Amino acid sequence: MKLPIEAKGIPSLDEKGLLSIRYQSFKQSNKTANEFVLDEKSITTHLVKDEALEDIPTAWLKLHLLSLRYFKPNELNLDNIFSVLPNLAWTNKGPIRPEKLKGPLIDESLQIHSLDKFPPMTNFVIPDGVRIADTSRVRLGAYLGKGTTIMHEGFVNYNAGTEGPNMIEGRISAGVFIKKDSDLGGGSSTMGTLSGGNKEVISVGERCLLGANSGIGISLGNDCTVEAGLYITAGTKITLLNEGNNIIKARELSGKNGILYFRDSTTGKVCAKTKEGEFQLNDALHENN
Amino acid sequence: MKLPIEAKGIPSLDEKGLLSIRYQSFKQSNKTANEFVLDEKSITTHLVKDEALEDIPTAWLKLHLLSLRYFKPNELNLDNIFSVLPNLAWTNKGPIRPEKLKGPLIDESLQIHSLDKFPPMTNFVIPDGVRIADTSRVRLGAYLGKGTTIMHEGFVNYNAGTEGPNMIEGRISAGVFIKKDSDLGGGSSTMGTLSGGNKEVISVGERCLLGANSGIGISLGNDCTVEAGLYITAGTKITLLNEGNNIIKARELSGKNGILYFRDSTTGKVCAKTKEGEFQLNDALHENN
Amino acid sequence: MKLPIEAKGIPSLDEKGLLSIRYQSFKQSNKTANEFVLDEKSITTHLVKDEALEDIPTAWLKLHLLSLRYFKPNELNLDNIFSVLPNLAWTNKGPIRPEKLKGPLIDESLQIHSLDKFPPMTNFVIPDGVRIADTSRVRLGAYLGKGTTIMHEGFVNYNAGTEGPNMIEGRISAGVFIKKDSDLGGGSSTMGTLSGGNKEVISVGERCLLGANSGIGISLGNDCTVEAGLYITAGTKITLLNEGNNIIKARELSGKNGILYFRDSTTGKVCAKTKEGEFQLNDALHENN
Repeated sequence: MKLPIEAKGIPSLDEKGLLSIRYQSFKQSNKTANEFVLDEKSITTHLVKDEALEDIPTAWLKLHLLSLRYFKPNELNLDNIFSVLPNLAWTNKGPIRPEKLKGPLIDESLQIHSLDKFPPMTNFVIPDGVRIADTSRVRLGAYLGKGTTIMHEGFVNYNAGTEGPNMIEGRISAGVFIKKDSDLGGGSSTMGTLSGGNKEVISVGERCLLGANSGIGISLGNDCTVEAGLYITAGTKITLLNEGNNIIKARELSGKNGILYFRDSTTGKVCAKTKEGEFQLNDALHENN
Repeated sequence: MKLPIEAKGIPSLDEKGLLSIRYQSFKQSNKTANEFVLDEKSITTHLVKDEALEDIPTAWLKLHLLSLRYFKPNELNLDNIFSVLPNLAWTNKGPIRPEKLKGPLIDESLQIHSLDKFPPMTNFVIPDGVRIADTSRVRLGAYLGKGTTIMHEGFVNYNAGTEGPNMIEGRISAGVFIKKDSDLGGGSSTMGTLSGGNKEVISVGERCLLGANSGIGISLGNDCTVEAGLYITAGTKITLLNEGNNIIKARELSGKNGILYFRDSTTGKVCAKTKEGEFQLNDALHENN
Repeated sequence: MKLPIEAKGIPSLDEKGLLSIRYQSFKQSNKTANEFVLDEKSITTHLVKDEALEDIPTAWLKLHLLSLRYFKPNELNLDNIFSVLPNLAWTNKGPIRPEKLKGPLIDESLQIHSLDKFPPMTNFVIPDGVRIADTSRVRLGAYLGKGTTIMHEGFVNYNAGTEGPNMIEGRISAGVFIKKDSDLGGGSSTMGTLSGGNKEVISVGERCLLGANSGIGISLGNDCTVEAGLYITAGTKITLLNEGNNIIKARELSGKNGILYFRDSTTGKVCAKTKEGEFQLNDALHENN
């Protein structure tokens, strides 16, 4: 689906305005500028130009378009989303502004699952062919390709995701995209750009393995492995075993194919070498249906 | 309880067949082959021979038998479980096939907790004498011995668990069993065999401590400690401090007692030495009632 | 608010006694000793002397006082809390003693979120100006200062918390307090005193960054950074780069300002040096409203 897009949905409102929107149908728009028409029972939003966000309906629409797989991470402009979206309590009685709940709670039947600008994806969208062991770990705006499994320790931010099939037991930060047949081990980390100082959006190629408790602040090409427990930041000095033991910064290897990253356990040096074999996902485990 | 076992339960069905089963009673069976009798309101399943799984009732029965502590991890054959069990949405309205929910959701009152082949254990079984801070982190088929605490960051897969008492703030992969009085620190990892390339089922003995953010790809005997932040894979080269600084692969130490694993922070060498003291769990914290 | 305090609340009871209490109002008390008056519909508790816990009403009151920001972590005596509080099932039908649920469950409409002595904070108290992406990760008794965001991988125990504003994607153990403008990266760990052998309560100063998957067993002063993936325990031997490469134990640096901790990736040495720049939090991301 390409812009311009017309989307119809059902708004959730309180006296202060829009809380959330369930977009239900999408088609080509005949408009020439972004606009929305909102009444109490329905909303129609036209997304014509992909600009920085200025209103809630467009923000919700872009999050839906990502989770429904109409667009991939980083294909839509989500600038300003933190200032546009209100913080809400996501409850068993629908979204509620937290100001209304401030202090000690009285209503024992109210269950608050999240206080956040982004709800869990599965409150609004169920993509086909995925498993998500704990739905609270995937935000609306995540893109999960067919055949993706997000285990209990996995996490996917908005504007981030997987091509599928993938086994994800680690954290996919905003902006990060994981190509098919790659595996993020338990507790592994992909460095995002929202906090922590990293400036480059990173990605992971095909057939990669991030070992358990490992992490990356650089991109991986295809067929790369990062040893369990090793964190590679952009500034990590890496000894190249296939290159006469030259030492370079990890950022110079960003995006390169076929590299095994590990820390030599007899010298403490972080090393990179060309891989002989390729990592194979376990077929039975990755079947979703 | 020993085979043959007869179990009676209540099935949850839709037009395509079985979704889940609440087994309620268990006794010795007088059958000579595996079989089940299913109608709309009840199911009776006989587990006579412990073979690779071929049907849903037997898969659900074995998961119940593990969580009810009738069998320990690796005592029942769970081969084929991923192909036998359907992927289901676990919701506040019971289990639903995800095909029925595909795309944008309409029903605002539907809360989807998980899209998975395995539900949380506590949807079906509550063992006595355990604490589970976040029930979404323990799958049905986990075995939690009396006196086990699973903290928020803890996780237990099916066919895995603890002898009890134990304090678990790390991840117990499928097939892994932790013996009594051992502690898995926050974010610690036990390598499984389902993905990631490890082939040997690992275990942890009594009175061990996996430090926070540490991990193991080998088994630990009794009275072992792995330093916080250190990941020991089977191939890690380890310097033996009590043995003239000989260097061996970690897999040669697999299952040995009384070893402290750490990385020398002045040389980067991963080392092992015999422990002087033993790790003691905190009594007050581990009391469950 | 200072002691003595009088608090009124609504008790939840079963035939064996008190399950939980929703304290609703707080004022100065005119009593001279701790006491409580309980009937079926209300409870009034006077907290006059801050002593080790001996009863459930006082334990619940102290947990409320922390989460309502009347007291900071470590300002109230919470000794004996594990022996005073019963373990409960926290469900969509309120708290239930787990003894009543033992074994296979029959009631399909019962959803058990937690089996724990402490409920999620947001079952009872919503502080203003916070985001908590997954409410199951923050226990009642946590103190979250205004402007705190707890991401999905964040965790805050009782008697622990943040001054605010803070971005927390790591784990704050019981007793640990994080001062303003500090960031705990994804999966980072702060060592507690409840298990694992650490004896000193640790803290983190202002403008610190714990990198993803890092951890500390010592306190940080202001303006400190711990490199992603590095765990500093009290016993870690640290090479001081600004001090002629002297080597000291990390505990001697506990609480010092302006230090960057990292592991030299060419030698494996854990090093500390004075920082040139300061870590800045991302403004848009940290805005809560």
